Amino acid sequence: MRQAGRSLPEYKAVRGEGSILQAIQDPERAAEITLQPVRRYGVDAAILFSDIVTPIFASGFGIDITPGVGPTCEQPFASAADLDRFRPLDPSVDLDFQAKTIEILMGELDVPLIGFAGAPFTVASYLVEGRPTRDFAKVKALMTGDPKLWHQLADLVADSAIATLRAQVEAGAKAVQLFDSWAGALHPAHYREYVLPHSEKVLAAVADLGVPRTHFGINSGELLPLIAGAGCEVVGVDWRTPLSVARERTGGTYALQGNLDPALVLAPWEVLEAEVLRILDDNAGHPGYIFNLGHGVLPMTNPEQLERVVELVHRVGTARGPAPDNAANAST
Amino acid sequence: MRQAGRSLPEYKAVRGEGSILQAIQDPERAAEITLQPVRRYGVDAAILFSDIVTPIFASGFGIDITPGVGPTCEQPFASAADLDRFRPLDPSVDLDFQAKTIEILMGELDVPLIGFAGAPFTVASYLVEGRPTRDFAKVKALMTGDPKLWHQLADLVADSAIATLRAQVEAGAKAVQLFDSWAGALHPAHYREYVLPHSEKVLAAVADLGVPRTHFGINSGELLPLIAGAGCEVVGVDWRTPLSVARERTGGTYALQGNLDPALVLAPWEVLEAEVLRILDDNAGHPGYIFNLGHGVLPMTNPEQLERVVELVHRVGTARGPAPDNAANAST
Repeated sequence: MRQAGRSLPEYKAVRGEGSILQAIQDPERAAEITLQPVRRYGVDAAILFSDIVTPIFASGFGIDITPGVGPTCEQPFASAADLDRFRPLDPSVDLDFQAKTIEILMGELDVPLIGFAGAPFTVASYLVEGRPTRDFAKVKALMTGDPKLWHQLADLVADSAIATLRAQVEAGAKAVQLFDSWAGALHPAHYREYVLPHSEKVLAAVADLGVPRTHFGINSGELLPLIAGAGCEVVGVDWRTPLSVARERTGGTYALQGNLDPALVLAPWEVLEAEVLRILDDNAGHPGYIFNLGHGVLPMTNPEQLERVVELVHRVGTARGPAPDNAANAST
Repeated sequence: MRQAGRSLPEYKAVRGEGSILQAIQDPERAAEITLQPVRRYGVDAAILFSDIVTPIFASGFGIDITPGVGPTCEQPFASAADLDRFRPLDPSVDLDFQAKTIEILMGELDVPLIGFAGAPFTVASYLVEGRPTRDFAKVKALMTGDPKLWHQLADLVADSAIATLRAQVEAGAKAVQLFDSWAGALHPAHYREYVLPHSEKVLAAVADLGVPRTHFGINSGELLPLIAGAGCEVVGVDWRTPLSVARERTGGTYALQGNLDPALVLAPWEVLEAEVLRILDDNAGHPGYIFNLGHGVLPMTNPEQLERVVELVHRVGTARGPAPDNAANAST
């Protein structure tokens, strides 16, 4: 349950005004926000309170998160000259706040902590577009029109993701997720040519750490075989693709995660309950499943609905399958 | 090539300020805008200049199209009391401007005219959400939480779509498209239960007119078998699903349309050319294909790029397959 925090009153009380990046850089506050959904929902894992643009921000590229808009770049990446705006991320300096946050969490958490990074395509799309986009026209024009420059950019973002994930695991994270949220905007042929090599590089570079790797993008039904093949143990599935279809497309050897439509958490409880049971049924006989939403928690979500979902999954999921695999996985 | 007009200087010259609904209600202007892309690009069909909310607007429900935003409802549909805000559409009165526009076009066009309507889910989502949405939370809460009211609403929208399409064909349109642009936001199980019956009703109610029916939604890869089965001869495919995959999922008995990513029209010509050829190759041996973009033309598109696309499709498509099936289909 990514972004579970933003629907919680206790989150709003400590989050503060302004860019979310300020809260992320404050270890006490970031640790508290990470803990809130674990306390509230009793989920089986925590996810670090951070953002996919944190490492790029921390390395001084010039990106912010504008409240009500999302990641914004005043000077988007536009030409080879912008490559000089990247400097290699040194986590011990640039992400010291992240290490301190995880250190606090290691003393507080009694469930595993999940770290994460943004995948090269999704992060680079913000750098090129300068703000959230519906059509990804600029980044597609760059990747297809100047593949050499695109691959240089994506490689730099990949390096930054690798350094981030390694630092998270070294500090205590027990699993990592690579979010390629917007990869589903691409045709599979373009994903394979321009995106897959960079995501593969990131996932391969954390393989030696021995922690489970989750790989995920929304709208990615057609990409599932490629996303799975990039190098992961768990494939995230949004709500559009039935789990049975996702198992077919990924070859059945991966654990799956997700599938509950975040919008349905706003429906009456009877509807939500039936939906959760349908998803658990869709998993009958497949222990490799982590219950989760198919995308982030919507801001207007009633926390009581999520409390009931977690309770239901723990009760029914445990009865139907091995507990650790039917675990509910939530946080901010 | 839906919305081809908005990238044309000649469109900007005649479109006027304010809501697009004013231009749609002006037969001279609407006919001129319909003709512009046919003249400019030499495409093989025209699509009526209108909007999917035109019939609901014309029947007085209270919906507008806000420039820079999209369809907006000051008083969204929220309860059974709002059912009274619908009155049956009488095309001879409510859509007289549409009949007049088509009458002008029948005297001017030397290619077939395509009519269209919005499908019940997509149109109803605007009525319930009150504006464009990313999550469709309100409409999903309504359809799952109060199925009876949802089905009443969707049925009224279906009736309005039927009256619209029938009037278009009676006035001279030679084909119809049913646009369920946002159906891809739904899980297939929800699509089947809440949406499919209403789209089926619309498509069945125009079957006796004997014109080809196209059915389309973006992001609809998982829904393709259901969208095809709703009752149509042509299935629209966005750029995420390869045509070969779409043929598999639809059973191979339908003609397909679309597949070019509108964002790639902004890429350098060599890239765009390769993409068009890749799509035509993906059709090798399948004459049942109508070349088109996978979604509307982006506003910042350079018309010269589209001119070259049409020229290329006419040249290569005609060499590779029967001309009428490889026809390029464009308009506003």
